[in-house]
Amino acid sequence: MQPNKIREHLRKFTRLPHLAGTEQNLRYAEQIRDEWLEFGLDSVEMVPYDVLLSYPNKSQPNYISIVDQLGNEVFNSSLAEPVPEGYEDTSNIVPPYSAFSAKGQPEVHTCTTGSILQVSKGIFVFTCVKSVKHNLCARVQPYPAGWNLPGGGAQRGNVLNLNGAGDPLTPGYPAKDYTYRFSLEDGVGLPKIPVHPIGFHDAIHLNMGGQIPPNNWKGALNVSYRIGPGFTDDFKSQKVRMNINTDNKVTRIYNVIGRIRGALEPDRYVILGGHRDAWVFGGIDPMSGAAVVHETVRSAGRLLSKGWRPRRTIVFASWDAEEFGLLGSTEWAEDNAKLLQERAVAYINADSAIEGMYTLRVDCTPSLHTLVYDLTKQITSPEEGEEGVSLYESWHKRDNWTNDRDAPRISKLGSGSDFEAYFIRLGIAAGRARYTKNKKTERYSSYPVYHSVYETFEIVEKFYDPTFKRLQAVAQVRGGLIFLLADSQLLPLDADQYADSLRKYAHSITQLAQTHPEEMKVYEVSFGELVVVFEEISSNHSLVRVMNDQLMYLERAFIDPLGLPGRPFYRHVIFAPSSHNKYAGMSFPGIYDALFDIEHSADPQKAWEEVKRQISIAAFTVNAAAMTLTPPA
Amino acid sequence: MQPNKIREHLRKFTRLPHLAGTEQNLRYAEQIRDEWLEFGLDSVEMVPYDVLLSYPNKSQPNYISIVDQLGNEVFNSSLAEPVPEGYEDTSNIVPPYSAFSAKGQPEVHTCTTGSILQVSKGIFVFTCVKSVKHNLCARVQPYPAGWNLPGGGAQRGNVLNLNGAGDPLTPGYPAKDYTYRFSLEDGVGLPKIPVHPIGFHDAIHLNMGGQIPPNNWKGALNVSYRIGPGFTDDFKSQKVRMNINTDNKVTRIYNVIGRIRGALEPDRYVILGGHRDAWVFGGIDPMSGAAVVHETVRSAGRLLSKGWRPRRTIVFASWDAEEFGLLGSTEWAEDNAKLLQERAVAYINADSAIEGMYTLRVDCTPSLHTLVYDLTKQITSPEEGEEGVSLYESWHKRDNWTNDRDAPRISKLGSGSDFEAYFIRLGIAAGRARYTKNKKTERYSSYPVYHSVYETFEIVEKFYDPTFKRLQAVAQVRGGLIFLLADSQLLPLDADQYADSLRKYAHSITQLAQTHPEEMKVYEVSFGELVVVFEEISSNHSLVRVMNDQLMYLERAFIDPLGLPGRPFYRHVIFAPSSHNKYAGMSFPGIYDALFDIEHSADPQKAWEEVKRQISIAAFTVNAAAMTLTPPA
Repeated sequence: MQPNKIREHLRKFTRLPHLAGTEQNLRYAEQIRDEWLEFGLDSVEMVPYDVLLSYPNKSQPNYISIVDQLGNEVFNSSLAEPVPEGYEDTSNIVPPYSAFSAKGQPEVHTCTTGSILQVSKGIFVFTCVKSVKHNLCARVQPYPAGWNLPGGGAQRGNVLNLNGAGDPLTPGYPAKDYTYRFSLEDGVGLPKIPVHPIGFHDAIHLNMGGQIPPNNWKGALNVSYRIGPGFTDDFKSQKVRMNINTDNKVTRIYNVIGRIRGALEPDRYVILGGHRDAWVFGGIDPMSGAAVVHETVRSAGRLLSKGWRPRRTIVFASWDAEEFGLLGSTEWAEDNAKLLQERAVAYINADSAIEGMYTLRVDCTPSLHTLVYDLTKQITSPEEGEEGVSLYESWHKRDNWTNDRDAPRISKLGSGSDFEAYFIRLGIAAGRARYTKNKKTERYSSYPVYHSVYETFEIVEKFYDPTFKRLQAVAQVRGGLIFLLADSQLLPLDADQYADSLRKYAHSITQLAQTHPEEMKVYEVSFGELVVVFEEISSNHSLVRVMNDQLMYLERAFIDPLGLPGRPFYRHVIFAPSSHNKYAGMSFPGIYDALFDIEHSADPQKAWEEVKRQISIAAFTVNAAAMTLTPPA
Repeated sequence: MQPNKIREHLRKFTRLPHLAGTEQNLRYAEQIRDEWLEFGLDSVEMVPYDVLLSYPNKSQPNYISIVDQLGNEVFNSSLAEPVPEGYEDTSNIVPPYSAFSAKGQPEVHTCTTGSILQVSKGIFVFTCVKSVKHNLCARVQPYPAGWNLPGGGAQRGNVLNLNGAGDPLTPGYPAKDYTYRFSLEDGVGLPKIPVHPIGFHDAIHLNMGGQIPPNNWKGALNVSYRIGPGFTDDFKSQKVRMNINTDNKVTRIYNVIGRIRGALEPDRYVILGGHRDAWVFGGIDPMSGAAVVHETVRSAGRLLSKGWRPRRTIVFASWDAEEFGLLGSTEWAEDNAKLLQERAVAYINADSAIEGMYTLRVDCTPSLHTLVYDLTKQITSPEEGEEGVSLYESWHKRDNWTNDRDAPRISKLGSGSDFEAYFIRLGIAAGRARYTKNKKTERYSSYPVYHSVYETFEIVEKFYDPTFKRLQAVAQVRGGLIFLLADSQLLPLDADQYADSLRKYAHSITQLAQTHPEEMKVYEVSFGELVVVFEEISSNHSLVRVMNDQLMYLERAFIDPLGLPGRPFYRHVIFAPSSHNKYAGMSFPGIYDALFDIEHSADPQKAWEEVKRQISIAAFTVNAAAMTLTPPA
């Protein structure tokens, strides 16, 4: 895999905006299909779905205004971001908006600035100040002079609350022509209130008064960061009015699915999937990832032309409409749920391949830890001055997993990218890898220009990866995982590592619950059974096929078809996200959610009963996983 | 498999009452375990669960009384059935009762006799008159002179409404020591009202007046079959009082699980399971079936001793507590759900092996039809005068499937025996076979002494199968299915037959819906997509292992993890039972249920929307099944 090829792919697919559901995104899909066929895949198909998308109304733009006591709009927020140099003639740049916002023109007397902003009278107002705070301090210049966000930039995004449902109108089923669609009123996760993002150059015009917020709500602007209610004294009579006219619309999207047929186990699938749709150019998100997938396909094609064929089938996917709620990947997972449950060995996600210039970041299921370590020891560090140093060593030096063990840190998979349906709903072993920032010093989420028009090819080429060696390293990790998962006779999934991790998670949750020692006694709560059986796993395997099935189905064993309470599509008992930010990084989400309710419920007995029920479900699931690994009697 | 051995097994296991949860039923479990080990199985284990059972209160018996205007009990129903000859000294015969009935002493002014009896002021009263009607006409004598039900006999049973949940306190999860248990109030399917069964000698004392019922509510007694309200004129001032003191109790039950390890595919399971617990002696239900399983194990042991070993693993199960809601089989299915989903090839049920003296009866999934026909052509008819005639011919002659095709009739699997969790929840190909009555002339359900104390060894030996050749034939069918499913290189499951059946079911449902042609247009309902893709199944198979997986997972593809509306454990989109008796025999239950609501809903638009949604789910599921059969690309 070659840096200059990755550069070429990225250049090619970031020239024009390619929002999901637009003509240009279909053109790129066709181009990817054609090139994957040229590269030598056995088959490539376009797979369409008709899903609910959401676009600004071109004749009635969205904006936020300050209205004086006479009802005059004395200030209106920008209708678009200033376009970066070189793209002045580009059409079809969608202005910043919050997809799936409710429509409306509500007036409010109170609002606030901050990173994720204040609920007030049922309205959110976004801006992006917080995320650039630390870099402003570090004197990183706004793009194009540096990689920071200009004051006119704003973060696009969707404001759905899907909990993994995919297309809001067809939860649980693929959005095909014959599929029943709920009405918009019955759709999943659609907000009832208007939402809109603005840049900080606009935000400072909202002269908020009232209370001082907690420190972690404050950004880096030279303003007082009041949170209302009302404006500062000079502006007491003003109101803020939102003008939101965004339309929801069932729209055709296209996944591109390419395949290399496995030589010996054609019905075992190893999947590399990432999205193609971008809010604008997608210079980082997602095309830095898509360029890596493209280069992986090209390399695989070269191997095929030399007579190589993997043991198992490899599936490459270019997903559509990720930005609108992971729609393309979820619909395809729903369409193929049965096959995937029975046949999928692993899913490697390929969203943005870079979000910083510091080191590797890997989030994956515990059974992949060992493979990731083994693989990164075979890859060269892309950092200048580290010739001859392995990626593993480079990564280890920068991000040691101190508390747990002396190895590079690997995190749990969260949510919010296309692996969700594969991992959290279907229980397929999954992982992701990208180049990242130094999270000890750069404490903003993602990267400053995230989801703005300033995500261009140039920002990658000038700042993030001028040699394209970091993207090459990510390609070697993603591609290497796929290669080893598809071609090893014995699946490189490590059940002992899963056992190890489960023991740690159980320890954490036991610690947390023991902040309530009295109630633990009163309600007879015990965590004792949680992982007992799992640790007695035998490794007395026999036939390779039988062993591989045991390993493949290990992840599936953690799926509860009943789902988590109230979230039927979040089925992974260990790794679904918690419902509460407080426990965002924790495993055993059902138990954490139940423990959360202990402090927030009027009926503690009922809440403790739910804790016990969730412990029992977790224990049962871990038992089932242990049985999956037990050789047939 | 030898008739005299089956006779021995039946004799041995019907000497004493062995209700679920009793000492004697544990003794029989231990005996079965020991004999299966002697027969030569590789392993046999007892698998306990602690489930909710229900027993009469020994110090406060259940009965129904007629109370005069002074409050005196002028008539009390019998506290027990007259014990059959030879069993006078037997203790631990549980009197007729309705397990899980609510407790209480309600008085009512109205009730009725009939087969399944009248709801009135929230109370059911059962008796068993209707079921003996046709035989009374045919002059079959009551036991012991004949096989009819004496007037003092009554039908035990449970009155749970579980919809496949298994143990009412642990729905969805196995009832192990660490499992969370709901309170009785939150348990699944427990009735809120008292229920009790009485024999017809008692029932005729309830001198009902009032309205004349529909003809099909009338039984064969020489009474007028009024349905109330109130008594006949002479008894106007009387009331009926129920006295029900049945207790629910968490009780340990024991499944016996035996295994023969597969030589080549040890992680593919073929299961033969039937229950062991009986209301009293279980002469027919279930020990005629258990004796057949025992003989199958003995025969398999003889083959093993000669060096044979099946390709796949065979699992033999003696389930406990079937009579209390399929509890033993469901808890084991819940305990092993993940393994079974991944590994189970087929489940053959072994409840009562005989319910009549006429011919074979088979209920199974369509993919087993061809195997059943092929197998029964190799088995000899057990009927006198049919030497040299195959079971297939004998069966075909007596029960031709006239409308559909010229072959013996095979019915759909219903519900109400231990296959439920395997077939309807987990989607494992399943079937059952037994000897049955002539249903054209013998129009009662099951058989007259069903669930009474008169189900003895002697009733089988004297009337149902004096030579034990009918039970031998059933053993050859059940055992033969297991043998062929476990030992054929290519799984003998016929996907084309499934396609054929789906086409017929879709035709039926289309016909039904077309009784509403106007609404079909108004609400844009179409059944067109239902089976289209399935019929285009390719049969371009390659590797045997891949092909076998495709076949094994065919049934699984019909499982929707979301379950049917309001019934999370009924997940088979084609073959779960309908919620409405009217559509009891029909496939595509979700669609039938929705169509039912069209005539019973205040909001027809909403009802038709649900029809459309259900069609779409069915179409999706059938598509998924077709994909399962498509060879890997």
